[in-house]
Amino acid sequence: MKAISQRTICRSAALLSLVLLCLTYRVQAANEHPNIVIILADDLGYGDLGCYGHPSIRTPNLDRMAGEGMRFTDFYVAAEVCTPSRAALLTGRYPIRSGMCNDQYRVLRRLSAGGLPDSEITLAQALRPGGYATAAIGKWHLGVWTNNPAYHPRKHGFDFYFGLPHSNDMNPTPKAPKGAAGRLDQDPEWWAAPLFRNEELIEQPADQTQLTRRYTEEAVKFIHGHKDGKDGPFFLYLAHTFPHVPLFASKSFSGKSPRGLYGDVVEEIDWSVGQVLEALRQDKLAENTLVFFTSDNGPWLIQDRAGGSAGLLRDGKGSTWEGGMREPGIAWWPGKIKAGQTCHTLASTMDLFTTSLKLAGAEVPKDRVIDGLDIRPLLFGTGDVVRDAYFYYRGTRLFAVRKGEFKAHYFTQKGYTQPKPDPHDPPLLFDLGSDPGESFDVAQDHPEVLAEIAKAVERHKATVVPGKNQLEELVPEGSVPVGN
Amino acid sequence: MKAISQRTICRSAALLSLVLLCLTYRVQAANEHPNIVIILADDLGYGDLGCYGHPSIRTPNLDRMAGEGMRFTDFYVAAEVCTPSRAALLTGRYPIRSGMCNDQYRVLRRLSAGGLPDSEITLAQALRPGGYATAAIGKWHLGVWTNNPAYHPRKHGFDFYFGLPHSNDMNPTPKAPKGAAGRLDQDPEWWAAPLFRNEELIEQPADQTQLTRRYTEEAVKFIHGHKDGKDGPFFLYLAHTFPHVPLFASKSFSGKSPRGLYGDVVEEIDWSVGQVLEALRQDKLAENTLVFFTSDNGPWLIQDRAGGSAGLLRDGKGSTWEGGMREPGIAWWPGKIKAGQTCHTLASTMDLFTTSLKLAGAEVPKDRVIDGLDIRPLLFGTGDVVRDAYFYYRGTRLFAVRKGEFKAHYFTQKGYTQPKPDPHDPPLLFDLGSDPGESFDVAQDHPEVLAEIAKAVERHKATVVPGKNQLEELVPEGSVPVGN
Repeated sequence: MKAISQRTICRSAALLSLVLLCLTYRVQAANEHPNIVIILADDLGYGDLGCYGHPSIRTPNLDRMAGEGMRFTDFYVAAEVCTPSRAALLTGRYPIRSGMCNDQYRVLRRLSAGGLPDSEITLAQALRPGGYATAAIGKWHLGVWTNNPAYHPRKHGFDFYFGLPHSNDMNPTPKAPKGAAGRLDQDPEWWAAPLFRNEELIEQPADQTQLTRRYTEEAVKFIHGHKDGKDGPFFLYLAHTFPHVPLFASKSFSGKSPRGLYGDVVEEIDWSVGQVLEALRQDKLAENTLVFFTSDNGPWLIQDRAGGSAGLLRDGKGSTWEGGMREPGIAWWPGKIKAGQTCHTLASTMDLFTTSLKLAGAEVPKDRVIDGLDIRPLLFGTGDVVRDAYFYYRGTRLFAVRKGEFKAHYFTQKGYTQPKPDPHDPPLLFDLGSDPGESFDVAQDHPEVLAEIAKAVERHKATVVPGKNQLEELVPEGSVPVGN
Repeated sequence: MKAISQRTICRSAALLSLVLLCLTYRVQAANEHPNIVIILADDLGYGDLGCYGHPSIRTPNLDRMAGEGMRFTDFYVAAEVCTPSRAALLTGRYPIRSGMCNDQYRVLRRLSAGGLPDSEITLAQALRPGGYATAAIGKWHLGVWTNNPAYHPRKHGFDFYFGLPHSNDMNPTPKAPKGAAGRLDQDPEWWAAPLFRNEELIEQPADQTQLTRRYTEEAVKFIHGHKDGKDGPFFLYLAHTFPHVPLFASKSFSGKSPRGLYGDVVEEIDWSVGQVLEALRQDKLAENTLVFFTSDNGPWLIQDRAGGSAGLLRDGKGSTWEGGMREPGIAWWPGKIKAGQTCHTLASTMDLFTTSLKLAGAEVPKDRVIDGLDIRPLLFGTGDVVRDAYFYYRGTRLFAVRKGEFKAHYFTQKGYTQPKPDPHDPPLLFDLGSDPGESFDVAQDHPEVLAEIAKAVERHKATVVPGKNQLEELVPEGSVPVGN
């Protein structure tokens, strides 16, 4: 009895120590490591926010966020369309490496059999060992779990999920007319998007007018639920469904913006950002949270007034011209990021992967190529970040490369209205600093730059082993029980 | 003797009263009425400032000015080129009324015999009776006083003048090659611009690399010289020569901007704005001074990289498309204008005339049509400003009209590369709110708007008596002693 009792005491003491250790670790983590919130818009253009010069879309919350934080002028996504761009953001790697890009089918479709491979490490997965609570709210588009459960966000490091598996135009009903997605006179009966909470389908067709509001409520609830830090710090990935077409806004925003329906939708996202920042302020977490706002690719110009604007940049979504891949980028962290800064240094969504891990004191995966850089020196104003070059892929093919202010195009192709790319040999060369609109080819004046860029391409290509392509195969129609 | 002595005493007492009255008035004026500073850039585009979305031109001072004040998204000039635009700003009237516009010669030339008529009342003239000290520094372009002394700024209400009589490309030397103005490899020997202090020619050729710096020094000196308010409040009209081509920057700014020479030049103007605001802060005048920054017309796009950008707006200088006439507009008055505001209500340079007079407690001329409105309600957030319509003239002809968010084009013509206008009957109609880039003609959907606009045109035309055209006649070459 006595021996047993002692063992019991010992065990209890050990257990207690472990619990205390865990608690200590958790509290330390909460104190030492910041919360991370990434807010991603869908198809929002470089020119679509007040603080990026749009005259009639009113974005007071994002403008204030920029005023209190840092606005990037040269912030890039890693692909010109949705699926590969999101894969890159969450893995810190060009999508060619994960196989999450394709030349014919540029994004995952409703019946796609593929998705983000298990072998990829998402930011959520990499943060978890450091005690982070994780949530993905909104559009996923990295694999359709009703086709294969392996692609659910909760299989990729997220504790919680609420949202749509893919784009909101991917479940048209038989009532949808041709070109329904880009129409300004939307009818909810044209769409049957499936809304999930974790693995559960909770609404189909989802009421798309309520999506931005509901995502926001879930995000705010997640923040409030983790304000005490007892589950560790948190990582919230809030990926809005809009302003991807079809456009829907809630009643409070419908018909309010001078920019029309597109403006209503962006202004509701702006409201959402305000709600998230306000929740952080209320919970006294603002000074321990990095919030980053950006978009997954440029504006979908062929949607006309239902699409956005890239401002003075050339072309939009689907293209490796600047308008397709340069995005608004706003970082906010009161007390850590100085207010009212503008950063002109090139940075990218892939850097958010690496930088978040550094901030979390977590390991950056060493067994693979990570393309993201640690941009803490830019955020905190402690130094520069030097990058060899930045690579613009369209599908699996390298179309363009930026090195310093120069950008070489090996191929150019409009996002949607040009069937085949134009090859360029010698490449076109633009000085993005003096010519951000890519109008004046200076290749003849700078053969030395083209030579340097060619070397950078060689160095990059030596690191690239294309992943097995995930975007080609489909499951048979009818094999999936619900119509998502 | 006694009577004389008494008379003398009486006279002295009366004189003393008058002096005291004057002094009291002056002190009152200094306290009650704000100083007014209007800073005008030349050919700067809507998209050329950081706070209007330019990615590579760095304008921290203007961005800060906007952050501390009010940024206008729908701020217009009253003409698509220099001379008529400036005439409208200083008189509060569409240039058709003063005769300061022309269809063939769009601006005053070096040998123009005409200029701002004596019958026009400039803002400086209207402010003077209220005790304002007045200075014009920079480009004038409202009459060449070496052709006719009546056109000197000091004949139009300004106590002090320092600057060039017209554009900086109007005195080419025989060494200037074809297309010299737009070249990025400028040679000072190509130009012989005359620099004046009051009536005195002090330098020809003026060293154009020093102009922005010298204008700024003169402006700061004027501010410091009037800080005690003993000469009353002041009105400073600082009209920069740049970024009109040929482009020149001082050594401190040359070769510094990623945007190239155009960026260097704009960044030096940004520095200049910073110096002016700093002088006001130093002299503790910030809270008693309205500063307004804008440009005279849109970017001169045919100058390629030596020209600016209108952002997402269509076309530029010379055109009645939005890019030609919608400009950055930033108002700053700490303590009176709330910080960080964006104003989407239409306002114009002509409103600066009326608003300044209201602020100064001065009379708005009643014997003529004044087109400018009092925009104090916008500045101070006390209400809206309702305007019947806004009229876009190209030369003497009404090309377009904006009413609310709608704009009708009766004629369209590119700024410089289209020899004749395209007439439109019915007019083109754009909803500038949902379509700020003027891409989608909605005339067929809104016949009622076209009808309303037609009525507004009738009302406007009933008020227009075209002034005698000032831009046609020339003095004979050789009749002017200096080569300006």
